[in-house]
Amino acid sequence: MRQETARITVTGVTEAERIEKDEILAREHGLTIIINGQELTTLLCSPAKLQYLALGFLLSEGIISVKDEIEKVLLDEEKRSVRIETGEPSPPDRDPVSMRYITSSGGKGINLSSIADNAGKAKMESKTAIALSRVYSLMREFQNRSEVFRETGGVHSAALSDGEEIILFTEDIGRHNAIDKIIGECLWESIQMRDRIMLTSGRVSSEIASKVARQGIPILISRSAPTDMAVRNAGEMGLTLVGFVRGQRMNIYASDWRIID
Amino acid sequence: MRQETARITVTGVTEAERIEKDEILAREHGLTIIINGQELTTLLCSPAKLQYLALGFLLSEGIISVKDEIEKVLLDEEKRSVRIETGEPSPPDRDPVSMRYITSSGGKGINLSSIADNAGKAKMESKTAIALSRVYSLMREFQNRSEVFRETGGVHSAALSDGEEIILFTEDIGRHNAIDKIIGECLWESIQMRDRIMLTSGRVSSEIASKVARQGIPILISRSAPTDMAVRNAGEMGLTLVGFVRGQRMNIYASDWRIID
Repeated sequence: MRQETARITVTGVTEAERIEKDEILAREHGLTIIINGQELTTLLCSPAKLQYLALGFLLSEGIISVKDEIEKVLLDEEKRSVRIETGEPSPPDRDPVSMRYITSSGGKGINLSSIADNAGKAKMESKTAIALSRVYSLMREFQNRSEVFRETGGVHSAALSDGEEIILFTEDIGRHNAIDKIIGECLWESIQMRDRIMLTSGRVSSEIASKVARQGIPILISRSAPTDMAVRNAGEMGLTLVGFVRGQRMNIYASDWRIID
Repeated sequence: MRQETARITVTGVTEAERIEKDEILAREHGLTIIINGQELTTLLCSPAKLQYLALGFLLSEGIISVKDEIEKVLLDEEKRSVRIETGEPSPPDRDPVSMRYITSSGGKGINLSSIADNAGKAKMESKTAIALSRVYSLMREFQNRSEVFRETGGVHSAALSDGEEIILFTEDIGRHNAIDKIIGECLWESIQMRDRIMLTSGRVSSEIASKVARQGIPILISRSAPTDMAVRNAGEMGLTLVGFVRGQRMNIYASDWRIID
């Protein structure tokens, strides 16, 4: 059995019967991120690619910005922690008020990246474009690869594509985590994000749109719906935002010129 | 148009054409919770029942425990804030480390309720039970009422039932928010939660299971999947956890004796 799943005995009820049976569930795992000896936060996530999650989280939150800042990454499976050491003595000081930001995804807590992060940023000018037919075929491949979802129904997936094929793919119980794992893997393995395409199974909130655009990824494609604020953010940042890709249909919410016939 | 939705012009693509069309999206709204003059946090949510969200959040996080503690609730629609005054001078001091907890829902931030909250709590002994046929009919009614979801595909819903019918129903862009709005409405309107039933459209993480059980609600029914940790928490707290209710099928993950034939 893969590490992201667990087998549990449940009571299965149908019209005909009520039986004990084994079910495969998504595993939920705590991961504490410790930076330069200071505990930063604990994420609840799927137990795979944990170093990438920690690195992607730090990059998404603006706590690190390039790989060279990182001196050491130590995963302690037993303690469920990732220790990261950087050249800096400690995480940058943050205004406690601007830290007090909570996410739409139901997460309760302090979001380290301020909501005003997008303000004043230049619009992405990337000339990357993708054909309609390629969007559909990438989304088909994306869904076919969602093995943990097929087993458990309890995870989201994210992927990075170069417009031809899927380069990186990951699943996690959290929408944000899945994308952060992709971002962290790109940072650590020196895989280009700029001018590439992010795919997500999940709904697109303003934070998801901003997280992707901040890495220079000009196209975000989702199977699900965006919020109005995500569309506004995408517009401001020059992000092409595609949603509701189902069969041979889709909606383009912003910068539709990157999706070509 | 309802306040939780916004109309946006998008590019709709089908096999036959590519047209400008109007779409209804879920609105995303910031809500800052200020308690006794101190900014506690900002939630991203659907703009409805905002006082209930603030109150439910405070109750779920253990910052308040009964209605009598609340002296004033002031919603400022323009500033997107709810000011709450309690008899206490300020929120209780919290250990900064135990505050550093982030949720599975992809939320990034500090969860105010410690993960160890369930430890040492007595198991729920509630004798509440519900017939299989009633679970199916309640879930049908629950789905029929999801109007914002039908319009936008971008929200979750939650409801409270007495086992006969749905008493309270709400939708929100966040799974946690939807449940907190129900909890806050119960607190403020003096609606009993103990021995009742919570319905949710969303996946059940450990935090969702704990949040419901902490209010003395002995049965949680979801259309979606739980995680392994949610099942473990439900077991420890004596919560009946039902998932994957689809048509005439369901799985019971914990305390199955409350679901009767």
